[in-house]
Amino acid sequence: MKKIWYTYEDIHRAIKILADKINHAQQPFDAMIAIGGGGFIPARILRTYLNIPIYTVTLSYYDVNDHPTDSPQKIQWTEGLASQLKNKRLLVVDEVDDSRVTLEYCIRELQKDGFHELGVAVLHEKRKPKKGFLPENLPYYSGIQVEDWWINYPWDALDIQAHNQQAATAHPTEKP
Amino acid sequence: MKKIWYTYEDIHRAIKILADKINHAQQPFDAMIAIGGGGFIPARILRTYLNIPIYTVTLSYYDVNDHPTDSPQKIQWTEGLASQLKNKRLLVVDEVDDSRVTLEYCIRELQKDGFHELGVAVLHEKRKPKKGFLPENLPYYSGIQVEDWWINYPWDALDIQAHNQQAATAHPTEKP
Repeated sequence: MKKIWYTYEDIHRAIKILADKINHAQQPFDAMIAIGGGGFIPARILRTYLNIPIYTVTLSYYDVNDHPTDSPQKIQWTEGLASQLKNKRLLVVDEVDDSRVTLEYCIRELQKDGFHELGVAVLHEKRKPKKGFLPENLPYYSGIQVEDWWINYPWDALDIQAHNQQAATAHPTEKP
Repeated sequence: MKKIWYTYEDIHRAIKILADKINHAQQPFDAMIAIGGGGFIPARILRTYLNIPIYTVTLSYYDVNDHPTDSPQKIQWTEGLASQLKNKRLLVVDEVDDSRVTLEYCIRELQKDGFHELGVAVLHEKRKPKKGFLPENLPYYSGIQVEDWWINYPWDALDIQAHNQQAATAHPTEKP
């Protein structure tokens, strides 16, 4: 599988593009729900442009014995948030829309919790057939569309200098 | 007040230094509690080096009418986490130890919730008299100590290129 490396600056610029799209949409959102851990950094940068609070939910695809699971486990969810978020327009934020399975799961579970004014914002939208599905009328925003390559995010780098050197070799058409 | 600008790469390197200190400590932590929104990005980078899950709590110093308040309000707290985090060693993560008021509040409230194996990790520790106090035996780690200047974090930049140009003018002794 082909790989691509993005610098933090690439990410920041893509979030600015994403924010512009969201700010040009008709109805503003009241708060973000960042999906942890991938959504934490995109959501925090996005807050600089949207000026709305960030709540978090976290999922894991590993069980208590660190074995991979097919369906996500809720690690931290919306307990205690019902009254604060009631009737609010909530923007669910993640780093990448890959198979769309996680996004489908989150939206469905948030709807079960009684949150119905939802939208989705992702930094990277992979151009590929999706296994998960979102409600047809759900507002959906992505910073940039990308090929179905393995994305190396800067926050996963053990050595940020080596990571940036890899990122510098990428062809300009692959960059935001 | 003197100001300083840090790039994302400065932050990432400081987190690596922080992680090395934590990993050299005697007892490993089981999970992080990131204080939102400042702790979200440091915690997510730190996860790359510590490999432990991130939970979040979020405070606000503004009331529902957007007026500043003296004492912090809990926006998202540990509801629903009691059983998962019972008897775990928890590392509370924030971006900066400034007055120490927020850290004191978080540690005290987490203790009230029944979490007693706590530590603190901050990216930047400002050299200044502290208004808040932490328990004397509490494990405490900081990436780097810094002067009491106004810190401009990259995630707050509206224009990341202009931000990095400012950061480039900083004297090397001010950098990690």
